[in-house]
Amino acid sequence: MQDLSRHFAETLAASQPDSLDDATVTEAHRALVNFMGVALGGADHEAMDITLKALGQFTGPGTAAVLGRRETVDMSMAGLLNGISSHIHDFDDTTPSNYIHPTSPVASALFAWAAVHPISGRDFLHAFALGFDVVTRIGDATYPNHYQAGWHSTGSIGIFGAAVAIGRLLGLDAQQMLWAIGMAGTQASGLRDNFGSMAKGFHPGHAARCGIEAAFLAQAGFNTGNTPLEGPRGFAAVTAGGMLDVDNLMDRFGSHYRFEGITYKPYPCGIVIHPTIELCSSIHAEGTAPEQVEKVELQVAPIVRDLCDQRPTRGLQGKFSIYHAAAIGLVRAQGRLSEFTDEAIADPALAAMRDRVTPVAVDGQSADSVRAIVTLKDGTVIDRFLPESLGNVKRPLSNDQLNDKFLNQITALGGDQAQQVLDACWKLGEMENVGDLVRATVPR
Amino acid sequence: MQDLSRHFAETLAASQPDSLDDATVTEAHRALVNFMGVALGGADHEAMDITLKALGQFTGPGTAAVLGRRETVDMSMAGLLNGISSHIHDFDDTTPSNYIHPTSPVASALFAWAAVHPISGRDFLHAFALGFDVVTRIGDATYPNHYQAGWHSTGSIGIFGAAVAIGRLLGLDAQQMLWAIGMAGTQASGLRDNFGSMAKGFHPGHAARCGIEAAFLAQAGFNTGNTPLEGPRGFAAVTAGGMLDVDNLMDRFGSHYRFEGITYKPYPCGIVIHPTIELCSSIHAEGTAPEQVEKVELQVAPIVRDLCDQRPTRGLQGKFSIYHAAAIGLVRAQGRLSEFTDEAIADPALAAMRDRVTPVAVDGQSADSVRAIVTLKDGTVIDRFLPESLGNVKRPLSNDQLNDKFLNQITALGGDQAQQVLDACWKLGEMENVGDLVRATVPR
Repeated sequence: MQDLSRHFAETLAASQPDSLDDATVTEAHRALVNFMGVALGGADHEAMDITLKALGQFTGPGTAAVLGRRETVDMSMAGLLNGISSHIHDFDDTTPSNYIHPTSPVASALFAWAAVHPISGRDFLHAFALGFDVVTRIGDATYPNHYQAGWHSTGSIGIFGAAVAIGRLLGLDAQQMLWAIGMAGTQASGLRDNFGSMAKGFHPGHAARCGIEAAFLAQAGFNTGNTPLEGPRGFAAVTAGGMLDVDNLMDRFGSHYRFEGITYKPYPCGIVIHPTIELCSSIHAEGTAPEQVEKVELQVAPIVRDLCDQRPTRGLQGKFSIYHAAAIGLVRAQGRLSEFTDEAIADPALAAMRDRVTPVAVDGQSADSVRAIVTLKDGTVIDRFLPESLGNVKRPLSNDQLNDKFLNQITALGGDQAQQVLDACWKLGEMENVGDLVRATVPR
Repeated sequence: MQDLSRHFAETLAASQPDSLDDATVTEAHRALVNFMGVALGGADHEAMDITLKALGQFTGPGTAAVLGRRETVDMSMAGLLNGISSHIHDFDDTTPSNYIHPTSPVASALFAWAAVHPISGRDFLHAFALGFDVVTRIGDATYPNHYQAGWHSTGSIGIFGAAVAIGRLLGLDAQQMLWAIGMAGTQASGLRDNFGSMAKGFHPGHAARCGIEAAFLAQAGFNTGNTPLEGPRGFAAVTAGGMLDVDNLMDRFGSHYRFEGITYKPYPCGIVIHPTIELCSSIHAEGTAPEQVEKVELQVAPIVRDLCDQRPTRGLQGKFSIYHAAAIGLVRAQGRLSEFTDEAIADPALAAMRDRVTPVAVDGQSADSVRAIVTLKDGTVIDRFLPESLGNVKRPLSNDQLNDKFLNQITALGGDQAQQVLDACWKLGEMENVGDLVRATVPR
């Protein structure tokens, strides 16, 4: 498509809040409720303290509240911190069509904006939907090539959503929006080598921060190439082996916001090991004691081994370990934040169970499913199949389940305050100033 | 190599200033003289004003002077600005073995550091040599794959040098240095789609800024994966199709600093069109008037067409146009900053000459050479070959030529001040505090 990026930018610059349909507004609220929960749940993670310790010297005047923290920083740094807190537990939303966590980079930037600039809920939702949609479209149009090449696309594609969302709030014209996309593309980064470390959580924060700055640079006239997405040295060529499914990218662009594929996690870890946690938990619940288990074979989708075939030595690695997923199900019958701490990894009962697990990749098997063949010491074989795990697109979390998830993970705020923030999130679209919500998250 | 990144980091963390030999010290001074000239030459470029206008709100307390500017910003932002000024004219050094401009990202970070922290010339040179060497080694070990994939390696590899240089000054231990490399790799970015725009100049600045922050994050304990260079989802796998020439990377690492391939540009534009400017200027000097020229065939290395086969519409694009290179030689017999402005691109005489130029790629031809076949309107054919252009590794600029280059390009400072800065640069290694040099560049 001739001038693809330019056309893309023109559509974004012209978009108006009344383009959001009811289904988009409803799902955007669910996404933001889920986001706020994980951001507050991660706000007191040590990665946040470390970031503030290291980079606090590089923040401008503290005009922006950080979600769930008492410190104030500049808007760009707030975007970074919101992104880290909302992804550090790997508990944020996922779009299984491209394995991106789309809300974190976009909403992190937007709540940083709202901390500084008065903004109505209506405008906030519009900018959020626009950014979310852009992330999902670019993600879908370059999947699987971009992700399989080793990019953590939540960062490397998330940056486009942050830049576009902030760019729209700045009122960028089409040329400026094109430059904002150009500045986003040229800062796109994030390597999957970092899965299982704090750097993974850094990625959407860096995307939010760099996306914010991309939009401001574009507004001021910092120019870029004209073909950031489609050019022979542009984003798709350089990072996705040239894959850019233009029909997918542009299908109903500007009139339809692609929220239909979003999922919310019941467990704070890589989504492809959720079926294993759920199935192994149910085997435990049926009465199988951990000490009875001789060995466990897991038949899983190939991507499970691609992503999660690691023996963990720290909590963050446990989030990407199929061995650990089976162990916490069979030993503890649950997967909360406390199952992915350094202490949990060191738990001898979990370590012993991990050693009994063998994952087998089965071509064509859905990543939503798992088959577990558990052999007990007495020779009994338990053979179970889970076709669709909770939280995936066919078994979505209900609003009540989202509320429970929200309240159960927050340690930075008291229960009353958490409930108030939760109630406000469900009404975000009607707020006069979303900044009030940001400030309501600061621990009392 | 098992634990390659870890071994790499251990060597860097243990390096001491006395590992620098005389040849390294000499060439490092030449590199820094050339760097300071281009940084001051670019300090009043509009891209600098735009960046300050857009991002000034995001700088911490103004503890750091920016080279050639009156504004003060935080150290990280100073790294960004120094990087933009020193690369915006495409006049900085080049390592033709990998087409990286290695000094800009590293020295930009280091002068930002020196603006804030007292640092001796000896320690500065050591950190610079370390960062420069790392950039050159990673560049050589992943060339041509990384560059040909479309990465602007001055940014995407430069970031490692900035992180390592600042990391060494912070006294990082081996584990922290490994994390600094990890944080650098996961922020590595910069697309060649932006050649011919301000975003190209942004890349080494962004590398300097992100490299500085990578080192501080690592110091504070922000952890990453352990295989940032060699892992299956690490830098080489993701950005260079898996190419990582370990023998090249590690050859005499820790004892030899790889400065032998550095070149300094006589013209402020892409290095591969330098031969064309020089040869066409000499054809003009022989008495060929522009209006006599009917057509020009240029036989060039294939990379010339790969990089510079564009018809410019703005000054920065002229820096990557083989057509414009031939035109300024044949029409003006020179290539100064004034040949790469928007006004020069619009000059009718240059536009007319560009239209008469046909580049032809010749397999196996050196990028240091060019053959020009100029057909005049009276039928005369002038056929010239230039085997080695000025400024390449076999015809290096002398110290006197570096001095002339330095003084001729600086407009932000008066002549006396420029001369004083130049004199100080040649003695940088003996300075008690390099911060004095930084402050001496602030326009009086």
